[in-house]
Formats: sequence, structure tokens, C-alpha cells
Amino acid sequence: MNNSMWWLAIPIGASVIGGIVAAFLARWVMSQDTGTAEMRKVSDAIFTGAQAFLSRQYRTIAILALVGAVVIGIVLGMLTQLSGVTASGVDSPTGVGIRTAISFLIGAFCSGISGYIGMQVAVRANIRVASAARRSLGDALMVSMRGGAVSGFLVISLSLLGVTLLYFVFALFTGATIAPTDIVGFGFGASFVALFAQLGGGIYTKAADVGAYLVGKVEAGIPEDDPRNPAVIADLVGDNVGDCAGRGADIFESTAAENIGAMILGAAVALTTAGGVAGQFNANWVMFPLVVVGLGILCSLLGLATVRRNSVKEPGQAGGRDAGEIAMGQLNVGYYTTAFASAICIFGASYFLLSPVSSMWWAFGLAGLVGIANSIAFVFITQYYTSGSYRPVREIADSARTGPATVIIQGIAIGYENTALPVLAICLSLGLAYFLGTLTNLGSHGIVSTGGIYATAVATMGMLMSAGYILAMDTFGPITDNAGGIVEMSNAPESVRDITDALDGVGNTTKALTKGYGIGSAALAAFLLFSAYLDIIYQYRVDVQKAAPAVAALAYSVNLANPPEFIAALIGAMLIFLFSSFAIRAVGTAAQAMIQEVRRQFKAEPKIMTGEVTPDYARCVDISATSALRQMIVPGVLVVATPIIIGMVLGPEPAAALLMVGTIAGILMALFMNNGGGAWDNAKKYIEAGNLKDENGKPLGKHSSAHDASVVGDTVGDPFKDTAGPSLHVVIKLLSTITLVMAPLFLALHH
Amino acid sequence: MNNSMWWLAIPIGASVIGGIVAAFLARWVMSQDTGTAEMRKVSDAIFTGAQAFLSRQYRTIAILALVGAVVIGIVLGMLTQLSGVTASGVDSPTGVGIRTAISFLIGAFCSGISGYIGMQVAVRANIRVASAARRSLGDALMVSMRGGAVSGFLVISLSLLGVTLLYFVFALFTGATIAPTDIVGFGFGASFVALFAQLGGGIYTKAADVGAYLVGKVEAGIPEDDPRNPAVIADLVGDNVGDCAGRGADIFESTAAENIGAMILGAAVALTTAGGVAGQFNANWVMFPLVVVGLGILCSLLGLATVRRNSVKEPGQAGGRDAGEIAMGQLNVGYYTTAFASAICIFGASYFLLSPVSSMWWAFGLAGLVGIANSIAFVFITQYYTSGSYRPVREIADSARTGPATVIIQGIAIGYENTALPVLAICLSLGLAYFLGTLTNLGSHGIVSTGGIYATAVATMGMLMSAGYILAMDTFGPITDNAGGIVEMSNAPESVRDITDALDGVGNTTKALTKGYGIGSAALAAFLLFSAYLDIIYQYRVDVQKAAPAVAALAYSVNLANPPEFIAALIGAMLIFLFSSFAIRAVGTAAQAMIQEVRRQFKAEPKIMTGEVTPDYARCVDISATSALRQMIVPGVLVVATPIIIGMVLGPEPAAALLMVGTIAGILMALFMNNGGGAWDNAKKYIEAGNLKDENGKPLGKHSSAHDASVVGDTVGDPFKDTAGPSLHVVIKLLSTITLVMAPLFLALHH
Repeated sequence: MNNSMWWLAIPIGASVIGGIVAAFLARWVMSQDTGTAEMRKVSDAIFTGAQAFLSRQYRTIAILALVGAVVIGIVLGMLTQLSGVTASGVDSPTGVGIRTAISFLIGAFCSGISGYIGMQVAVRANIRVASAARRSLGDALMVSMRGGAVSGFLVISLSLLGVTLLYFVFALFTGATIAPTDIVGFGFGASFVALFAQLGGGIYTKAADVGAYLVGKVEAGIPEDDPRNPAVIADLVGDNVGDCAGRGADIFESTAAENIGAMILGAAVALTTAGGVAGQFNANWVMFPLVVVGLGILCSLLGLATVRRNSVKEPGQAGGRDAGEIAMGQLNVGYYTTAFASAICIFGASYFLLSPVSSMWWAFGLAGLVGIANSIAFVFITQYYTSGSYRPVREIADSARTGPATVIIQGIAIGYENTALPVLAICLSLGLAYFLGTLTNLGSHGIVSTGGIYATAVATMGMLMSAGYILAMDTFGPITDNAGGIVEMSNAPESVRDITDALDGVGNTTKALTKGYGIGSAALAAFLLFSAYLDIIYQYRVDVQKAAPAVAALAYSVNLANPPEFIAALIGAMLIFLFSSFAIRAVGTAAQAMIQEVRRQFKAEPKIMTGEVTPDYARCVDISATSALRQMIVPGVLVVATPIIIGMVLGPEPAAALLMVGTIAGILMALFMNNGGGAWDNAKKYIEAGNLKDENGKPLGKHSSAHDASVVGDTVGDPFKDTAGPSLHVVIKLLSTITLVMAPLFLALHH
Repeated sequence: MNNSMWWLAIPIGASVIGGIVAAFLARWVMSQDTGTAEMRKVSDAIFTGAQAFLSRQYRTIAILALVGAVVIGIVLGMLTQLSGVTASGVDSPTGVGIRTAISFLIGAFCSGISGYIGMQVAVRANIRVASAARRSLGDALMVSMRGGAVSGFLVISLSLLGVTLLYFVFALFTGATIAPTDIVGFGFGASFVALFAQLGGGIYTKAADVGAYLVGKVEAGIPEDDPRNPAVIADLVGDNVGDCAGRGADIFESTAAENIGAMILGAAVALTTAGGVAGQFNANWVMFPLVVVGLGILCSLLGLATVRRNSVKEPGQAGGRDAGEIAMGQLNVGYYTTAFASAICIFGASYFLLSPVSSMWWAFGLAGLVGIANSIAFVFITQYYTSGSYRPVREIADSARTGPATVIIQGIAIGYENTALPVLAICLSLGLAYFLGTLTNLGSHGIVSTGGIYATAVATMGMLMSAGYILAMDTFGPITDNAGGIVEMSNAPESVRDITDALDGVGNTTKALTKGYGIGSAALAAFLLFSAYLDIIYQYRVDVQKAAPAVAALAYSVNLANPPEFIAALIGAMLIFLFSSFAIRAVGTAAQAMIQEVRRQFKAEPKIMTGEVTPDYARCVDISATSALRQMIVPGVLVVATPIIIGMVLGPEPAAALLMVGTIAGILMALFMNNGGGAWDNAKKYIEAGNLKDENGKPLGKHSSAHDASVVGDTVGDPFKDTAGPSLHVVIKLLSTITLVMAPLFLALHH
């Protein structure tokens, strides 16, 4: 144990502070008033539904995770034992199996907790936002943002604390070098749960949404969020279980996996600079990611502190400007504050931790800035492609004049087009960070520079420093969405609806932004994670096979010219397509079940339509839940099993090829799904706002045939942007954590 | 010059025979009667329109190709000269530049000729099919199949003859080893023209189709192929310029590129077995692909000979069975005959050419069978996903009950799902062929077995042996489609329409099958082509850099773990998405122009709708042409320029990464586009045929809301399956041929 272990005080301290702030915010939110009795009735129904789904979902996930842990422990322990070699090179295979299984369960548990807390706060905040909207936009904004922040800070703090403590414990047992690879199980457990949470929640929310829409608005002709629609509560529940619980688990997983990957790379740098295991291992390289993420929590708190009630304008006093836009501007101020503070902190951390070990520490500081710049670039690009103020959405709206077919064609064209700029941003960030890292001359594995790879990890850290603030903004979305639903269903006056409508617009923007952020950081994190995977292979060759570093460096290669690796790569990309197919189809299937139930209720009880009888909301909630849980199993198991099978049959390098090309396909597909869906949604809103005009200048608003066409686009986009797209973020990281965890097994079978 | 040069007699002889048979068939088709005066009027309009578009299109392409040739020649010659090294190692850079430019122009010219001939025959055959349909289905089938065969055999023969003669000439000048790399320009020229031919034609045909449909059927409420619709001739012209001319250039390019790639790999094997350039070079390895493709022409002729008039049943005498299905069965017999004969021939060729040079010749024979099996697998898979007899299409049709949004969601889900089986078939074929090849122990480049790679080339040859027959079936499609249009527009009696409808159904199936075949062979050919590319890099290191083979073998690697290569890979995949976006959007833009023109005509001349005045067809034909030509430039230049820029800036290995991952993304995207589009089309037909029933068992046929919903899916699928999808086949191969041609430049800049 090394003196630099004291640096752990920063991540531990920061996560404790984050937790305390979250607790205070939660208390503040809970102290707000809960509005009228009508509001409470609606809110209670949502709460009950969300609670019921989550407990069923988590029971299913818990069983899956337990089975997963046992299988992983046994397979890793037994098979590597049978093959007679150990991967870590310092411990028994049984030890590897047990430690990985324990890490997995802890990760799975923490991830589950994160999602659960996020949902709990959100369903309690929504009614308080609805009530605050009766007073002012400023009040409503504060309640929703702070409600979002509770889950944001709890999730990030829990993730950091979990990784840090596990590292600390394992470092005591197996030493600072090996400990990072011991805790990859934590990341795998987290992504395992995140996948099912995001996928199940995503299916639930969109099945309810699409089902409620098709049978309510299209068939029965009643407006959205109308209390006569039996599926309306399920729809509102969906926002919570999909967006809050799912995204919470997703971001938890991102920061955990990124931390672990960066620590493994840090250990590799430390080993390289020390000249092998015998040299003076400097744990600063391993500490650095934890410290940076800890500082990120503090920066995010600073950003949150700038969001104030009195800096927004109430709808009546906005002087002709859009009150929602002003509020969004306020949230942006908070984000830029976070980004600016992060820039200073990551440069400072580079100086304090890395200047003792590298004279070129500033190159890493600059790489961190590259990551922060990348996250800002993603914000702008996402806004360009999904906001009604720019060409893409307007083109889709325009194409609605010639019916639904052209809306779909144009939307898909825009969706594919929108992959270009984010990919270029990622390429530029990776390339620049890598280049900066090569300047540090920290040795190399074959043709790949160790310092360069570490610098890409630093860029990822830079991007993820603002995760706390981003997650707060993200949870803000479903809270305001729900508040709008509650206001609508409780017959509140028009002025209150104006406020929730303004907030809802803000929420849509933040949701799109955070999805862009999610995929951008997933892309950077994935590169870091597969570098970590290759490092494990490299270390294995050196430690266990006693290969000379020069020879082992040749293994630091994913050679697509080799047919087994090309085949694995092809399968990796196909896996993304197949997974997307399952995810999209699951929504369709679940929505069909919902439609049949609503039709049945309308038929069995005609008084529902007249408003005399309350429909059976619980039944619809239950149907959504049952089909979501049933539909999430196959795609989930598919993406978990395929890389394991490929790695066992074809070997560790083909598994890396699957991982890398699967990640590339996943990035592109997720960009297409998220922003394509978002653009369709906003094209519909653009038309609803009366911005599309016929040749005589008359607005083609609601109920025009152009609007009907745009609604088809919006409905198609729903499972894209809220089910398949966000699930793909998790899939990308899951592929990495699976291969990381299974590396000892693959190596044992193919040594 | 080697004795084995005499083997060239087989490809030369076979291509001459193919050409002669094509001439005879053409004479036979032309000798058929041309029907009624009304039919001739329609047919003449189609002929004029197609002629006009093609000459304009080819003028544009000719200019692009000339510019391309000059740029390539200068860049290759000058830059490699300036850098002071030559890639081929035996000749001056100027020589490389000039030879490549010449090959390029010859390839471009031959490709242009192929497309042109295909279209010429098709537009003359259509009216003769329409006329024959007045007599019998058997007659009509013979005329259309033989019409298709003219273009099929001319194209394949021309491709083989071109490559063979060029090889012969260059072998005299620069020796049998170097000659294959000299003729890569031929393949690049062919794919360059094929890209623009397929893209321009694809945009043309779908802009006309979508435009005609939206304004005619949806707005004006007149049926399909109605003479009152001003866009109807443009629509019929589109079938010829898109499907005939485009596909002809595409398949020309496939066989040419595959031959060249296989010859380069053959040269590599010959060099490896000879123990370097000094050893005894056995040209049999290089001859083999030419011989196999030559035999393939003869096998395809055999298959064609089994298609006979008297083995089909006329609609009245089919005994309740579908006459179209019986006719399709007849075409299948021809295909299986071709496949069976090919299996014997490729095994025989392996024995005669390869047994003198390898005791394990039979492994290559088996690899050839793997390729043939792969092509049959693709036929079955495509049929499963696009025929109304199976689950996928029925699911889409079912989803039409709940409107267009669910049709689109379900169709996209099916489209993504359908990538799985073909990818597995490709993986299995590649893996099996490679494994068989490794048994031959012919040495290796690093970890990659030379014999294994050659065996994957043999599998590709096996698959492409039936190309002549497949192309005949493919051209059959637009011919029968046009014949149906002519019959419809010339007011022929119902019984004639029954026959053309039956043929049209067959044509739709063959079109889907050949697209599946196209992408399957493109995938195999691409792997072969980038192996050839890596071989060039390898030879360069050995010849020019005087590297030891063991060191040079390390260069036989596309290492995604290296950031520049990962970045290039990401850009490669993105390029596919961006290209698809441009292609799809081009159809939308061009269709808009068409819609405005048709609206204008309807407004300006009300008598068009009453049938008293003939609309101005030529104007619509012209508008389609102008917008198609304008829209094809940007995406075309994009895919040509990007790999060149990446190769020049980042180097030859990143260019390979772009190529490989771009190919993987392209395969998946093309599968999605082709079969997704096909499934939507057939779901509509399934509903039209009355197979979808409501809860009381009443068919939901034409004009039901379910049918309307399915039409939206069909319209969305049009640019997918006929513009973007087929163009992606060409893009995949173009990426390979570009990098092959530019390899000397990349190496010179990054040595």
C-alpha cells in the first residue's frame, strides 16, 4: 500500500458530500406541498403503478443477476482451473471466480438501488411540481430540477463510492496493480442490471405510450392524457420507470465502467513506466480517475447552485419571449458553469497527481479539456438535429405535406445523416487526445502508445465530470412530463397548464441533450474499455506465458484481416441490428396487448367514454408490466451470451473484434435512433405550434392532414428514441464489461 | 510466359460462346412480333425516355470517369515519384500511373457498355413480352427470360473477356506476377461507373415511382399505370434504367473485381509456394479464377436451356394452382441445374489446375462447394423474409390493422432481424472455406494462412459461377414489369393481364432473390478484395522496403486497437449511413419535383383527367432525369473521396480499417434496405390478395384502411430496396477497388 492511497480521500469525500446534498434536496422536495386532492389521486395512481412495476421488474432482474453471478463464479473459477493456467497470475482461479462474482453482485445491487431511488424521488416530485406550477414557473422549475438532482447526485456518488471502496479493499488483499482487474465484476454487474432496467423500462413506457395513443386518440378520438383513457396512468408510470429508473442505472454504469477501465489503463501505465512488475509502481495513475470523477461531483454541485428561481421569467412577464426558452437558458448556464469548473479541476488534478510521475502532465490536462469540449460539441449537434429552429426538423415537417410515407423517408434520411457530425466529433476527440498522450513518451504496446491510450481515458473522464448535472437535467424531463399529465388530468386552470407546458418543452430538450451526452460518453468510454481489455491480454502474456514484452505487444492487436476476427466483427455488428429489432418489436407486441385491453374496457363499460365510470387503470398498468418483463429477456440474454460464446469458441482476439465493431455499429445505430426519433417528435410539435403553412400562408396546425402525417413519424420514433436507442448505450458498455470479466476464461481456453 | 497461359483458352472461349449465344438470343427476341399499335405507342414512349436518360446519364458519367482517370494517373504517377519509392518495385511510377489510368478507362467503358446493352435489349423485349402474353404464359415467359439472358450473358462475357485480355497483355509486358495488380484499375473503373449508373438509375426509378404514386393514386385517385398520369411513362422508363442498366453495371463490376482480387491472391499463393520472387512461379494459381468463371458461363447456359415453354401451365390449365408459382418453379429448376453443374466444374477445375501445385487440391474444390451452398442459402433466406408465405411478411401485414405507424415499426423490426441469418451464412461460409484452405499448408502471412485466404476466394468464385443465370433472372423482372405496364396502358383484355400479372409476381420474386445473391457475393468478394489489398502492402514491404517476410507479415494486420485505425473504422461505418441518407433523400427530393410537375399539368389542362388530352409524358421523364443526375453526384463523390483522403492522411492500414468496417456496415445496411423494402412491398400485395381478414373473416382488401397503411410501408420501402440498397452493393466493392488502386500512393506517403 502506497502513500498515494490518501488521494482516495477526494473521491470518498466528494461522494459523501454528494450523498448529503442529495439527502438535503430530497428533504426540501418532500417538504413542498402536494396540491389538490384531485392531483393527489392521479399522483397516487402513478406511484402505485410505478412501485408495482419496479418491484416486479427488480425481482426478475435479481433472479437473473443471481443466476449470472453463480454462473460467472463457477465458469471463471472452474474452467480456468481445468485449463491449468490463471490469468491474473498471482492468485488461484477460485479466488478470481469468487472475487468477480462478489463484485458482480455488489455492482448489480448498487445499480438496482440507483434506479430505484431515482424513480422514488421522481414519482414524489411530480405532484409537487404540479402544485408549484399553480404558483409560478420559477417555483416549478426549482422543484423539478432539485428532484432531478436528488437522483443525479445519489447515483453518481454511489457509483464512485462503490468503485473506490472496492478498490481500496481489493488493493489491501491483492495489491494496487491487480485490484482494478478484480473490480471489473462491479462494472459488469452494473451494466447487467442497467441493461434489463433500461430495456424493460423502455419497452414499458413506449408500449403504454403507443398503445394509449393508438387506441385513445386515433380510435376513440379523445385527447392525450385524458382520464377516460384506461391506458393513461400506465403511460405516466412509463415515464418514470423508463426515463428515471432506466437512465439512472445507465449513467451509474457509465461512470462505474469508465472508472474501472481508466484504472486498469492507469495500472498499465504505472507498470510500463516502472519497467515491469518488479519496479516502483506508482498508484497515482490508478488514483487519477477516481479523483477526477470526485471533483466532477463537486463541479456539478456548483452548476446546480446557479439554477435559481428568480433568474427565470414567468410566462406573463417574459416580454414576448418564450418563458420555456429562458428557463432552458438558465439550465444551460448551470451546465456551462459545471463544464468550466471541470476544466479547471481536471487541469489541477493533472498537475497534482501526474506531474510527480510525468513531466508532460499538461498533455493529460489538455486531453481532459478535449473531453469537455467534446461534450459541449455533442450538446450543439444534438440541438441542431432535434430542435425546430434548424433545417433538419423543418425538412421533416415540410415533408408532412405529402403524407406519412414522405415523413418517414425524410426522417430516416435525417436520422442517418445525423450520425456524421457526432462521429467526426468523437474521431477528433479520440485522435487529439491520443496525439496529446503520445507526446508524453510513456512507452508503447506494439504500435500503440500507452500514454496515448491513457490520454483518451482522461478525455473520457473530462466528459463524464458533468455526469451529475447532466443526470439531474435528464430526470427533470420525466418529472415535468408527469407534472403536466397530473395538471391535465386534475382539470387545473389554463394558466397552470401554460407553466407545465413551458417546463415540458424544456424537459424534451434536456432529454434529447442527455441522450446525446450518453452516447458520446459511451463511445469514448468504450474505446477506453477495450483498450483495458487488450491490456489484460497483454499482461497475461507477460505474467503467465512469460512472453517478452515485445512479443506480447503483438497480442495488443485486433486484426480484422484474420478470418476468425473478421467473422466475429461481422457478428458484433449484426448483434446490434438484431438487438434493435427485438427492442423495437417488443414495443409493438406490448402495445398490441395494451390496445386489446383498452378496446375491451371501452366495449365492456360504455360509461367510461361519458366520464361517469373511472376506467380500470391498474389492469393496463399490469398488462404493460407483464409484457415488458416478458419481452426484455430474449434481447437481454442475446447480448450477454453472444460475446461469451464467441470468446470461448473463437478466442480473446475475436471477442475484442466483436466488441469493437459491435461498438461502432452501436454508436451509429444509437445516434440514428435517438436523434431520428427526437427529430420526428419535434417535427410534430413544430406543426402543432402552427409553424408549417400552406401556400396561402395559413398554418397547417393540429388536425390538418400534415399533422396526422407527422404523428405517424412521432409514433414510429417513440420506440427508437426511448427503447432501442437508450438500451444500445447500455449494450455498448455491456459488451465491454462482459469481455473484460470473461478475459481470464477466454485466455485459459485459447492460450 | 508460362505454359499454363494456355488455360486462358477456357475463359476466352467461354466468353466468346457466351457472346455468340447472347447474339442469337437477341436475334430471336427481336424476331418476335411487336403486338398492337397501341402497345407500340406505349413502348416507343418508354424507349425514347430510356434512351434520352441513358445518353444524358452516360455523358455525365463519361466526364466524371475521364476526370477520374486523369486524376488517378497523375496522382499515382507524380506523388509516388516525388516520394521516391515505387510500389510495384519493378517499374517506374509513371508506368504505374499510366497503366492504371488505361485499365480504369477500359473498365469504365466496358461497364458502361454492359449497362447500355442491358437496357437496350430490355426496352425492346418488353413489348414483345406484352404481345406474347396475348398468346400464352409460356411464350411470354420465354421471351422475357431470353431477353434477360441476352444482357446476362453479354455482361458476364464482357467482364471475363476484359479481365482476361488485359491480364494477357500486361503479363507480356510486366510478367505474370505483377499483371494482376496492374489490372485493378479495370475493376475500379467498372465500380466507378457502376456506382453512378446504379445510383442515378435508382434515384430516377424511385423518384418517378413515388412521385407518380403520391400524386396520381393518392391525390387524383387514378389507378396505377393509368395513361392519364403524366408520370406513368417516367415510372416505366425507371424500371429499365434502374433495374436493367444499373444492375448490369453492378454485376459486371462484381465479377470483374472478384476475378482481379482472386488473381492477386493467386499470385500471392504462387509467390509463397515458390519461396519468393526468385522461385518457380506457377501461374495456375492466377489462371484458376478465370477458368472457373469461364466454366460458370457454360453452366449458366446449361441452366438457361432447361427453361422451356411447355413446362409451365397456362393460368386456365393450372388446376387451381398459381400459374406464376409454377413458372417460378421452372426458373428455379434452371438455377439448380446451373448450381449443380457449377459444383462439378469447380471440383474438376480444382483437380486439373491445382492438383499439380498442391496435393490438397480437393480442399479448394470443397471451398468452391461451400460458395455454391452459400448462394443457395441466400436464396432460401431471402425467400423466407420477403415472401407472403412466411411469418415476416404476414407479421407486417397484420400490423397494418393498427395503421401506418405500426406497419413501419414492424417493417423496420423485420428488416433489422433479417440481417441475422445472412450474416451467419456468410460467417459460416467464410469460416469453413478458410478452414479448408488452412489444411493445404501453403504458408502464412503472420497469423493469417495464405491457403485459407485463397480458399475464401474459391468460395466466392463458386458463388459467382451462376452470375450469368442470376442476371438473366434479374433482368427478367423489369421486362415483365414493363410488359405489364404496356398491357395495362394499351387496354388489352383481362386474360392478357392475368398472364402479365402472373409474370410480374415471378419477376418480383426473382428481383428479391438476385438482390440477396448480390449482397451475399459482394460480402464474400469484399473479404477477398481486402485480403488482396493487404497482400499488396505485404509485397511492397518485401519488394521495396526489403523487409524480411516475417517482419512484413506484421503489416498484414488491420489493428483496431490502434486509434488511427479505430477512427478510420468509425468513419467507414459512418460513411455507409451518410451515403444511405443521401440516396434516400435524393429520391424524396426528386419525387417532390415530379409531384409539382404532375400537379401543374393537371391544373393547366383539366382534359387530361377526362382522357381527352394526352399528358406531357416527356416533360416528366425529363424532370426525373435532371434531378436524378443532379442528386447522384454528391453521394457518389463522397464514397470515392473519403477512402482516398483517409488513406493519404492516416495511411494504408487505416484505409484498410475503413474499408473493412465500412464493408461490414454496408452488408448489414444493404440487407436491411433490400429485404425490409421487399417485405413491405409483399405485405401490401398480401393484403391486396385478400389474405388479411377482419375478426369476422371478411378480407381486408384494397381500399381498406389496413391496405392504405400497407401502402405507406411500400412507399417507404421503395427507395430502400431500389435505390439505397443496390447502390450499397456497389459501394462495398468500390471501397475495395479504390483502396486497391490507391495502395501505391498510400504506401508512398506513409513508408
